[in-house]
Amino acid sequence: MHSFTELSTLFEKDFNRRHFPLNPVNLYDAAQYILRIGGKRVRPVSVLMAHELFEEINADAFYAANAVELFHNFSLIHDDIMDKAPLRRGMETVHTKYGEDTALLAGDVMLVAAYEEINKIDFSKLHSILILFSKTAKEVCEGQQLDMDFEKKEMVAIEEYLQMITLKTSVLLAASMKMGAIIGGASQGNQNHLYEFGKNLGIAFQIQDDYLDAFGDPEKFGKQVGGDILTNKKTFLLIHALTVANDKQRADLNSLMQGNVVDKVAKVLVIYEECKVGEWADALKEKYFNLAMKHLEETAVMESRKIELKNLAQYLLQRES
Amino acid sequence: MHSFTELSTLFEKDFNRRHFPLNPVNLYDAAQYILRIGGKRVRPVSVLMAHELFEEINADAFYAANAVELFHNFSLIHDDIMDKAPLRRGMETVHTKYGEDTALLAGDVMLVAAYEEINKIDFSKLHSILILFSKTAKEVCEGQQLDMDFEKKEMVAIEEYLQMITLKTSVLLAASMKMGAIIGGASQGNQNHLYEFGKNLGIAFQIQDDYLDAFGDPEKFGKQVGGDILTNKKTFLLIHALTVANDKQRADLNSLMQGNVVDKVAKVLVIYEECKVGEWADALKEKYFNLAMKHLEETAVMESRKIELKNLAQYLLQRES
Repeated sequence: MHSFTELSTLFEKDFNRRHFPLNPVNLYDAAQYILRIGGKRVRPVSVLMAHELFEEINADAFYAANAVELFHNFSLIHDDIMDKAPLRRGMETVHTKYGEDTALLAGDVMLVAAYEEINKIDFSKLHSILILFSKTAKEVCEGQQLDMDFEKKEMVAIEEYLQMITLKTSVLLAASMKMGAIIGGASQGNQNHLYEFGKNLGIAFQIQDDYLDAFGDPEKFGKQVGGDILTNKKTFLLIHALTVANDKQRADLNSLMQGNVVDKVAKVLVIYEECKVGEWADALKEKYFNLAMKHLEETAVMESRKIELKNLAQYLLQRES
Repeated sequence: MHSFTELSTLFEKDFNRRHFPLNPVNLYDAAQYILRIGGKRVRPVSVLMAHELFEEINADAFYAANAVELFHNFSLIHDDIMDKAPLRRGMETVHTKYGEDTALLAGDVMLVAAYEEINKIDFSKLHSILILFSKTAKEVCEGQQLDMDFEKKEMVAIEEYLQMITLKTSVLLAASMKMGAIIGGASQGNQNHLYEFGKNLGIAFQIQDDYLDAFGDPEKFGKQVGGDILTNKKTFLLIHALTVANDKQRADLNSLMQGNVVDKVAKVLVIYEECKVGEWADALKEKYFNLAMKHLEETAVMESRKIELKNLAQYLLQRES
């Protein structure tokens, strides 16, 4: 069994090449550009880790891992256009550097390239992988649409937000785990447990992300703390606060969201603390973490083989033990 | 054997249904909307016609036909965003009606839906169809990028324009024919002849389209005649005129392209006629039409089976016999 770091190095070695032809140079340079921005490669490495639960990692697992990473980058390019994001990981987004039209097309060819990787998988697995991959791809688009819809809605229920987050971010991690399991010849039961493991881990991670955006240590978090508060982003925290707040707190929150007073972040954080939003988020994250771990427990492989996936879960959720 | 019209009716009957779930309603209504705008369905019907050369039409041919039509609509949605086109076939484009962000996503799910149709094809054909489909999808994106690149270039050679047109519009018709052949169990030789038949037919059709935009009868053409001239679009005609014009004609053309004088279209047409651009385009169209027909001739099936494809070619290229 290999650790996340070992497999990440292995994946990078395979993935860090030109994925596109040279011409038309404008199109394919834009597509290649985002792949160099990098990232933690959590999703493709999850394919490899889930696969290694069942057998030694083979070429098919790498094709699936490539497909997942290409798909993820397709969605980043198109999401950044929609979100008008100037930067990603401190570098210019594709549309900022190459223009929106080329970015749109670069995303399109990236999605096609993902399917080309899938098509390299042995035909005995191809059909079921394709079904899962396409289902997941549509769900990720649905999640992005819901996210945009929510921006225009005054009130979003916690269940709606949870569904949006699940589609937008968690199902791809879930599908990555399941693809590894399918390629490894896992039973349907094990495939589903690993899907649920990835899905619940993804939800727990997003709750943590929302939490750290408000309460995190700016030096460790790497992003501007309070960014979500400044942009009135509907997060787990804001939605919960609006639900449990008393009339005065709710009125204060709503009025803070109207403008951008200098100490907006600090003032919102005071209300969050009065409403015990932090403790609530911590408990919610714990709930989904435990659900994820329960599904990993129930995966019918030897306990000793699960150590690296447990380590991954703990690393992603910043837990000590 | 069935005629284009018969197969078109058959295709519409199968295709004219909801292709997407109900929710998120904003996303999937936008995707469904463009499918109702219709069109001649030339590409999907070509799949069926090429297939029927070899065997009775089966379910796999319909899956491929659906995939081709969904892919075509994906490219229309995204192209219309890039071209900032307000109308398509007299109806609002998707981004005009639903906004650019939702249109972008609707295109994305349309592309995924195309792959879902492909994945229904029997596994004995799935791999080769997927390779052809993905190759074609990337080429269509490349063609669109080249088209955008050309807008910024002062001079485009006829060979460059031909390559762009081939990628942007002809390879999808070519691939449609070849997919029908693959599903019909055709030999590699026949598959390639039908690919070349579709490709050259597509090129001939585009030359005709450029010609009619300048010289067509407004009532029959259905679009504003002279539209390409007004927008300085680099077409077969303009590129050829700039190549063969004398110094004065070239200077006049370039100066007409600088502004938008009231009689710009009429004045450009005078130069086109002086340069015999119409006759040249007619001969070029004939050349590609003949190339297409040569490949159909060389397809090794009984002559009597080819009648409907010949009729299609003559119908598309508005020929009497």
